[in-house]
Amino acid sequence: MTPEDLCTRAAASLRQVREERPKVHVLTNFVAMNVSANVLLAVGAIPSMTIDDTVIEEFVGSARSLVVNLGQLDPWRKISVPMAIAAANRLGRPWLLDPVKVDRSGRRLAFARMLMDLRPAVIRCNRDEVGTLEGAPGIVVAETGEVDHVTDGGRRFEMANGHPLMDRVTAMGCAASALTGAFLAVEADAFLATASAILIYGIAGEMAAEKAAGPGTFPAHLLDALYRIDIDDIRERAKVT
Amino acid sequence: MTPEDLCTRAAASLRQVREERPKVHVLTNFVAMNVSANVLLAVGAIPSMTIDDTVIEEFVGSARSLVVNLGQLDPWRKISVPMAIAAANRLGRPWLLDPVKVDRSGRRLAFARMLMDLRPAVIRCNRDEVGTLEGAPGIVVAETGEVDHVTDGGRRFEMANGHPLMDRVTAMGCAASALTGAFLAVEADAFLATASAILIYGIAGEMAAEKAAGPGTFPAHLLDALYRIDIDDIRERAKVT
Amino acid sequence: MTPEDLCTRAAASLRQVREERPKVHVLTNFVAMNVSANVLLAVGAIPSMTIDDTVIEEFVGSARSLVVNLGQLDPWRKISVPMAIAAANRLGRPWLLDPVKVDRSGRRLAFARMLMDLRPAVIRCNRDEVGTLEGAPGIVVAETGEVDHVTDGGRRFEMANGHPLMDRVTAMGCAASALTGAFLAVEADAFLATASAILIYGIAGEMAAEKAAGPGTFPAHLLDALYRIDIDDIRERAKVT
Repeated sequence: MTPEDLCTRAAASLRQVREERPKVHVLTNFVAMNVSANVLLAVGAIPSMTIDDTVIEEFVGSARSLVVNLGQLDPWRKISVPMAIAAANRLGRPWLLDPVKVDRSGRRLAFARMLMDLRPAVIRCNRDEVGTLEGAPGIVVAETGEVDHVTDGGRRFEMANGHPLMDRVTAMGCAASALTGAFLAVEADAFLATASAILIYGIAGEMAAEKAAGPGTFPAHLLDALYRIDIDDIRERAKVT
Repeated sequence: MTPEDLCTRAAASLRQVREERPKVHVLTNFVAMNVSANVLLAVGAIPSMTIDDTVIEEFVGSARSLVVNLGQLDPWRKISVPMAIAAANRLGRPWLLDPVKVDRSGRRLAFARMLMDLRPAVIRCNRDEVGTLEGAPGIVVAETGEVDHVTDGGRRFEMANGHPLMDRVTAMGCAASALTGAFLAVEADAFLATASAILIYGIAGEMAAEKAAGPGTFPAHLLDALYRIDIDDIRERAKVT
Repeated sequence: MTPEDLCTRAAASLRQVREERPKVHVLTNFVAMNVSANVLLAVGAIPSMTIDDTVIEEFVGSARSLVVNLGQLDPWRKISVPMAIAAANRLGRPWLLDPVKVDRSGRRLAFARMLMDLRPAVIRCNRDEVGTLEGAPGIVVAETGEVDHVTDGGRRFEMANGHPLMDRVTAMGCAASALTGAFLAVEADAFLATASAILIYGIAGEMAAEKAAGPGTFPAHLLDALYRIDIDDIRERAKVT
């Protein structure tokens, strides 16, 4: 698959999200909830975010994908996360793991490793975090940073889109994970879904940075860019190898 | 009461909120907390949002109205919500129920029905949600969507204000509920308070959409519009029948 | 120390934050989390915000200061807060207490008083809140409002920067506390660190208000201002006595 093919597939999946408006359930930390929901809504997906273990199976069951983020892990999510994952696996819903700051805590790392055994379709994290986790065959790994790397062990893309302001706004990585959830909902090939989401997110970040005066005005323009981005933006701006 | 009368009353209540700066306690989901607090502050109300059952009665007691939103219902709010409602009922404070996504979960619906028995002054929700709940005489129902309907069983207004971007930003409905809490704090007629809040919110949404470039820039302009909206904006823009 | 000296020291500490990018752990309420994290990132600090008692010591241990905010105090933070403070005290990390709305609840006030016994380096609050707490020798007190007062019992600054819009946006005080945490991380003199942070925050607020059209557009400009503010802005705008 060429970079040009990725652009075409990314644009096709984006159109599908906008038309089908898939439900995506996101279990994420409190800082990231609002922006993650808004990233999903900006591309047309319908987020739900309950962490209540007594209803989590109903919500996962009526969603098409699941995103699990380990930031600010609280006692309920420690209960709800494995239940949500079990429901997703039983129902055949793809799920993504975002192991936030596992490099800062041995206990959180142990929890993340236990979840890796439950076979996420994708893990998305930064270099420090990925360094603590052992990959597993068939799990797509998206390592984001100045250059983003997406691989399923066999195929691999590197993407140099994005903007330094994204490091000066909280939860930008968490929101990238949420966006990937939307693409997993419509694209059965988890590698393609992930590469598409990461590519589009990085390009939208560049578009936003052109309008922003700093990290405060940046996130609103990022959401506007995700709402408006089209195949021409993707083709013209993609830096994929 | 004519649509013109509603505009006059809505503007009068808004002025009262701005002058009296009523305290409003809001028990809402984590995604909606920030924007709900900011909607209240934009019109001059003073929000509090604690979910701690050991202090909830003190906070409800020093507030003039209570808003209860069932999104992301967690174990504490399951405890705090009935305590807060009991305090509001005992002290004669009006309270509003926002039964978020009860159509997605039988358990959440059962919880909402139990709360309906505690007699909210108002329920505010969308069509899918209201379809699952049976109304009760004397409870004001605000069903918001492309057209908003507010009724107390006898009186009824339909309002066609608002903007499609409001569906592309998370927690816009939850924030409408919070705003209604501010109007319930100053207007004893819950039907009028609710219709006033929903009307002003929809008009502010239209004003915001004229300045926004997408769902990202929209919420900031919505808050600015709520801060600035005056009786002329209301009279000129109201689409009430 | 003269007001001019404070400006010089404030600018030097700000530069140090931007260069050293200190980690700051913030235990705060759900409304304030996102904006507090973004205030820290805007000046270059690295926030973490977990409230999980099983990892809190690891996070405090890898941070250079700790901020404790009592808004929306939940059962975990009631457990995690004393653990985090004990870790900070044991490791010699300065910590700040923000006793949000202690004037609204006797129980919350009792909790705040217990924490005062654990010797914060700084308390930051408004006049109503500070009135309920007795100071203690050596604890820096920052009382913010129309005029901000910072004192350590001996030294004292009054600062008249800031803007009324800051009262119309939620969590602006909480975010000032978070910012102070960044300055405590790089400046060993807690009085100077606090006065520097409060001064810079107020000036950034004035810079933001010049660009904002209301409370909605204000917070984004505040973050942009914190990202850009330099020693000339500080010297030209400071209203310190």
